[in-house]
Amino acid sequence: MRTSLHTVGFLGFDVFGTVVDWRSGIARAAQPFLERHRIDVDPFAFADEWRSLYQPAMQSVRSGERPWVRLELLQRENLETLLARHGADFGAMPGAELAELNRAWERLDPWPDVLEGLARLKRRFPIGPLSNSHIAGMLRLARYGGLPWDTILGAEIARSYKPQPQTYLKSADAVGLPPHEFALVAAHNGDLQAARACGLRTIFVRRPHEHGPAQSTDLEPEHDWDIVADSFIEVADLLDCPRL
Amino acid sequence: MRTSLHTVGFLGFDVFGTVVDWRSGIARAAQPFLERHRIDVDPFAFADEWRSLYQPAMQSVRSGERPWVRLELLQRENLETLLARHGADFGAMPGAELAELNRAWERLDPWPDVLEGLARLKRRFPIGPLSNSHIAGMLRLARYGGLPWDTILGAEIARSYKPQPQTYLKSADAVGLPPHEFALVAAHNGDLQAARACGLRTIFVRRPHEHGPAQSTDLEPEHDWDIVADSFIEVADLLDCPRL
Repeated sequence: MRTSLHTVGFLGFDVFGTVVDWRSGIARAAQPFLERHRIDVDPFAFADEWRSLYQPAMQSVRSGERPWVRLELLQRENLETLLARHGADFGAMPGAELAELNRAWERLDPWPDVLEGLARLKRRFPIGPLSNSHIAGMLRLARYGGLPWDTILGAEIARSYKPQPQTYLKSADAVGLPPHEFALVAAHNGDLQAARACGLRTIFVRRPHEHGPAQSTDLEPEHDWDIVADSFIEVADLLDCPRL
Repeated sequence: MRTSLHTVGFLGFDVFGTVVDWRSGIARAAQPFLERHRIDVDPFAFADEWRSLYQPAMQSVRSGERPWVRLELLQRENLETLLARHGADFGAMPGAELAELNRAWERLDPWPDVLEGLARLKRRFPIGPLSNSHIAGMLRLARYGGLPWDTILGAEIARSYKPQPQTYLKSADAVGLPPHEFALVAAHNGDLQAARACGLRTIFVRRPHEHGPAQSTDLEPEHDWDIVADSFIEVADLLDCPRL
C-alpha cells in the first residue's frame, strides 16, 4: 500500500459517475416519458442536458446567491428548465409524473465492478458517499443498487456543495478524522484536486464511459493522485483488502 | 403488521441500552483501569455512575446554557468528574489513557438478538441509529459490533439532544420522510413518548437487564406503543420481515 494511505480511516466516494452510471439510468427512465409526451429528443442527449444543468444550479448556492437547498430541488428545477427548452408544457403535466422522473437519480445502476469492490473495501475501511446529493437520495440509491455504505456524508452534512472546501472538511470531521486520514475516491480530476487542496488523500478511478462513447474528459489522471485504478476491485487490491 | 406501520420507510434505533449492552462493556473496560490506578470502586458501579452523569450533562446543552457539542466531549468531562469524585487525580494520568477509556463507549457488545434481528429488518427497511451519540462514535460502534446501518441519524444531524423534538424531526426529514413514516425502536418509554409527541411510530423492545439484575425501570411498556417486543427478532417477525 502507498505509505500515505496507511493511516486512512474512511473512504468517501463521489457517486454520480464514479459509483453509478447516471447516463444510462437517466436515459432509460426518460425514454418512455419522452415518448408519452412526444418530446423529440434522444434519451441520452436528454440525460446529458439534464446533467449539464447540474453545475450551474449548484453554483448559485456556492456563490451565496441562494441558500443551501437539497440537490433533489435543483434537479427538479433543472428538469423543468429542460422540458421548457424542448417546448414541453411541464406545468400541464401531473406533478407525480415529474416527481417520478426526478426519482430516476435514485435508481441508477452501479458500474459492474462496484459491488465486489465495495464489499472488499468495507472489510478494511468504513465507506460512504461524499456526494453533492442529499442524504435521502443517497439512501434510496444505496437501497436500489445494494451499496453497502456505513454512513452517508457529503453536501447535506456540510450544507455546502463540492468543490467547496467545507464539503470535504466537514465530512471528514463528521467521522472524527483529520483530512489526511480521509481519502476521496472519484472519477473526476477536479473533485480530487479540491479534496487534495483540503489535505485529503486521493484515489482516481477511470470511468471512460461516464459520458458515453465519445467521452473526452477525465480519461486520465491529471495529477499524481495517491492511487490510480481502473476499477474498485483494483483499488481493493492496491489497498490490500482481503478477497471475499 | 399493525396498520399504522404499513407506510413506515425508516427504522431509527436508540442505541445505548436498546442495541448494545453498555453496562457490561463499560465495566469490562473500566476494570483494568480501576485496578491499575487503585481506585476502589466496583466496575459495574463505575459504569452506572458514569452513565448517570449523561442526562445532566446533556441538559446543559438542551437548556441552551452551552452550545451543542458532541457526546464524546460530555462523556470525557463526565469521566473526569467521576474520577475526581473517587479521589483519583485524573490530571496526572496520561491523556491517551483517558481517551482510551472514553472509547469504551464505542466497543460495546450488541444484545444477542441484535445482529439477526437487524439483518432481517434491513431486508425490508432502511435502518440507522437515532441516538444522542455523535456520528463518529456510532460509526466506530457499528464497525466494532457489525451493526449493518444504512446511515447514521440522531443528535449530530439535528445538533440537538433527545428528547428535544428537533432530534426526531430532523432525523426523519434527513431521510426524506414525514414523522408518521418513521419509527423509533427503543427500550425506554420516555424516548418513545417524545418520539410519539412528534408524530413518529413507536416500537418498544424490553431490555430488562440494561441496568443490571436489579433493574426497576422500563421493564414494561407504559403506553400503547405500536409494537411491543422482547427482541429485534420478534420485531422482525411482527413486521413480516423475511427470514435469513
